[in-house]
Amino acid sequence: MNEVIKQIKERKSVRVFEDREIETHLKDEILNSAFQAPTAGGMMLYSILDITDKELKAKLSITCDNQPFIATAPIVLIFLADYQRWYDCFNLNGCNPRKPGEGDILLASSDALIAAQNTVVAAESLGLGSCYIGDILENCEVVSELLNLPEFVIPVSMLVYGYPTKQQRERKKPIRFEREYIVYENKYHRLTKAQHDEMHKIRNEKTSTINKNVAEDIKALCKRKYMSDFSLEMDRSVGEYLKKFRKRS
Amino acid sequence: MNEVIKQIKERKSVRVFEDREIETHLKDEILNSAFQAPTAGGMMLYSILDITDKELKAKLSITCDNQPFIATAPIVLIFLADYQRWYDCFNLNGCNPRKPGEGDILLASSDALIAAQNTVVAAESLGLGSCYIGDILENCEVVSELLNLPEFVIPVSMLVYGYPTKQQRERKKPIRFEREYIVYENKYHRLTKAQHDEMHKIRNEKTSTINKNVAEDIKALCKRKYMSDFSLEMDRSVGEYLKKFRKRS
Repeated sequence: MNEVIKQIKERKSVRVFEDREIETHLKDEILNSAFQAPTAGGMMLYSILDITDKELKAKLSITCDNQPFIATAPIVLIFLADYQRWYDCFNLNGCNPRKPGEGDILLASSDALIAAQNTVVAAESLGLGSCYIGDILENCEVVSELLNLPEFVIPVSMLVYGYPTKQQRERKKPIRFEREYIVYENKYHRLTKAQHDEMHKIRNEKTSTINKNVAEDIKALCKRKYMSDFSLEMDRSVGEYLKKFRKRS
Repeated sequence: MNEVIKQIKERKSVRVFEDREIETHLKDEILNSAFQAPTAGGMMLYSILDITDKELKAKLSITCDNQPFIATAPIVLIFLADYQRWYDCFNLNGCNPRKPGEGDILLASSDALIAAQNTVVAAESLGLGSCYIGDILENCEVVSELLNLPEFVIPVSMLVYGYPTKQQRERKKPIRFEREYIVYENKYHRLTKAQHDEMHKIRNEKTSTINKNVAEDIKALCKRKYMSDFSLEMDRSVGEYLKKFRKRS
């Protein structure tokens, strides 16, 4: 196994960091790794907000479903799907452009996330832990004001980085679902009840929670993750962001 | 510079492949690297379609803005933002779930793209080139039928992989825009006309196209990329996909 594959395999999310700054040259490497990612048409349809202001970090730790570790993370980057820059550029150069649509912003989101994952891989190679915060999608009104976001920008993801504590370094990486339930050949197919059960049972067994009742487990997860306040808020908030990209017919 | 950072820096998109199969164990490594990526709540809100059928590849090479190299690429993977699997799972386990919304599918898209980029990094380390095909977002009706996609799945990106030809290995990696136009501290700000001009001028200079007229260059790009048929089709098609996730009020 080569070093890259090994690091991808070992990398796990880190939410508890040592109280230690990240050196500037390492931060530069993280940002440079983002720029090295491929983007649609080479257009770099994303921007990165480097959140250095402590008060702003503290506010975001609240708007992002109350996760205090965000407030003290040494590096906080927000990856923006950004069609504002190009729309402005087209306008300023007399191109008479149409307004950005839903396809444009999904493509820009792709650019942003692809760049984001490059920073995660780069950070790991530098001994730094990281964690995605999808909750930056919530509370669009407050977040847009805090970050001064214009009309055609969506903050698709946030990442925090820092030196992992010993406990975090030693934490076991969560087990994934088996390949057969994730990869399909040529055509998609929906899983049967038995396949769903098996998919969860195998993961539970590998996680050493053999006796867990699969149905109860799924019900609890549905309540905690999917029917929860933060999830409903994310749906509302993303709906508001996407409205701006919808056809005005 | 460590090996991981070096490879991220050197990696560029590859669209021309040697006529040579990719060994099964390498394909396994690529897929495994996807599974190792972090996902929201550990839910793996994505699926991967492994397109092995030659006829299907040929059809997709047409629906994806007529790009013939897709038809002969040794590996073609489609990354699906997938809320169908969990919605089915919740239903089958009596959770009485709400229908997936726009926030859910954007989060699922994030999972899919983060996993996709892990495969790109892994492929590079194995001597394999890769190229994203955003055009899989176009022609939702035809693509959904070809791939048997259910209601709550969006094919957010496609990737092709193969051994790069000598010409492709020696091709210069395209120059990126400068950091100051992509990264902002704490708050977003829109660029002035002078900043836009400078941003493009610097990239042109570094690309050795010093005498290019920036305004003409931008106008041509707007026409070719943004006002083009494929771009309008992508907007329409993504609009159709997203409709299914919109609040029914």
